[in-house]
Amino acid sequence: MNFSSKLIENAVNALSSMPGIGKRTALRLVLNLINKEKEEVYAISNSLKELIDNINYCQVCYNISEEQICKICKNENRDKNIICVIRDFRDLIAIENTNEYNGVYHVLGGIISPMEGITPSDLNINSLIERLKSNQIEEVILALSTTMEGETTNFFIYKKLIPFNLKITTMSRGVSIGDELEYTDEITLGRSLINRQLFETTLQK
Amino acid sequence: MNFSSKLIENAVNALSSMPGIGKRTALRLVLNLINKEKEEVYAISNSLKELIDNINYCQVCYNISEEQICKICKNENRDKNIICVIRDFRDLIAIENTNEYNGVYHVLGGIISPMEGITPSDLNINSLIERLKSNQIEEVILALSTTMEGETTNFFIYKKLIPFNLKITTMSRGVSIGDELEYTDEITLGRSLINRQLFETTLQK
Repeated sequence: MNFSSKLIENAVNALSSMPGIGKRTALRLVLNLINKEKEEVYAISNSLKELIDNINYCQVCYNISEEQICKICKNENRDKNIICVIRDFRDLIAIENTNEYNGVYHVLGGIISPMEGITPSDLNINSLIERLKSNQIEEVILALSTTMEGETTNFFIYKKLIPFNLKITTMSRGVSIGDELEYTDEITLGRSLINRQLFETTLQK
Repeated sequence: MNFSSKLIENAVNALSSMPGIGKRTALRLVLNLINKEKEEVYAISNSLKELIDNINYCQVCYNISEEQICKICKNENRDKNIICVIRDFRDLIAIENTNEYNGVYHVLGGIISPMEGITPSDLNINSLIERLKSNQIEEVILALSTTMEGETTNFFIYKKLIPFNLKITTMSRGVSIGDELEYTDEITLGRSLINRQLFETTLQK
């Protein structure tokens, strides 16, 4: 595309460097921005600059945080004896939004993926081990995705955790709530039968 | 959504103030940004600030321009005797990208739309009349969309132009190139028959 204006071109190129935003969408955004109040655009521009200038990671759990220790690790009411091992900040938000978890987290920063060249040493696994050595932890929940990579990473960490003699759990797997049995894949269905649970327990909520 | 980080929250809110970007998309963009190099994020932030600080409109045709007179109006090779009246910058880019037009433009900045409260006085119509008064123009092309609002605006301007005794044209209407007749709407098909053109003229390109 030929924009006839360098300013427009720069802004379009900048916005379209973000994932999922093509040149055409970027142009639509830019034409919307130039009709906004200056202050509104300054706010967007500044929020991005402040984000990248001040973003930091919690020194305990590697959650995104403005401070050295994140709000969750600081919170007196959270149960520090349970650590939930997750992939990234998005999963943390997802779990927090359920309001069902009151322990703390450990953010790996990814999962083992030979295809993408991500090896265990790229992840915050050693720091998890150190955390277990220096604290009295009762339970570790391995809460990675149930994909091949997720399960590989779960298993890798599981083996590292065995010597610590603690409770190692993972998310329950089974038929999603609201799903039709007919459309559930065979592996999930098969495992849900083998690991069937007492009906009473499904009534709890 | 509860983000547990003010920086993330601010950036998500800022990005999701743009059209077509919801909170979830904004979060995806923000998490991508924090993994980028600082310089890349600065570039995005700066390009938006520079855009809103320096954006300007051509004093002749109201095209977006960094300078008082836009590149198209300045260009010696463009035919200043033909003015193409268009809605906005996006239509200008669309026409420029065809490489079929060598005249100049007049950007209205919108079209008459009682539903959205846009009246003729909100558009750059008076400046078009002034331009015709002070220059020797041969032809005005009314190139607005063929929607109800577009046609209304075309007709409004057409009436204003009659006293000037110049050639007033509009885009040819008819079956889109590549379209199946079967799926063409009746009005377009009917008008294309009434205004049928010599077959020879379709061979020119």
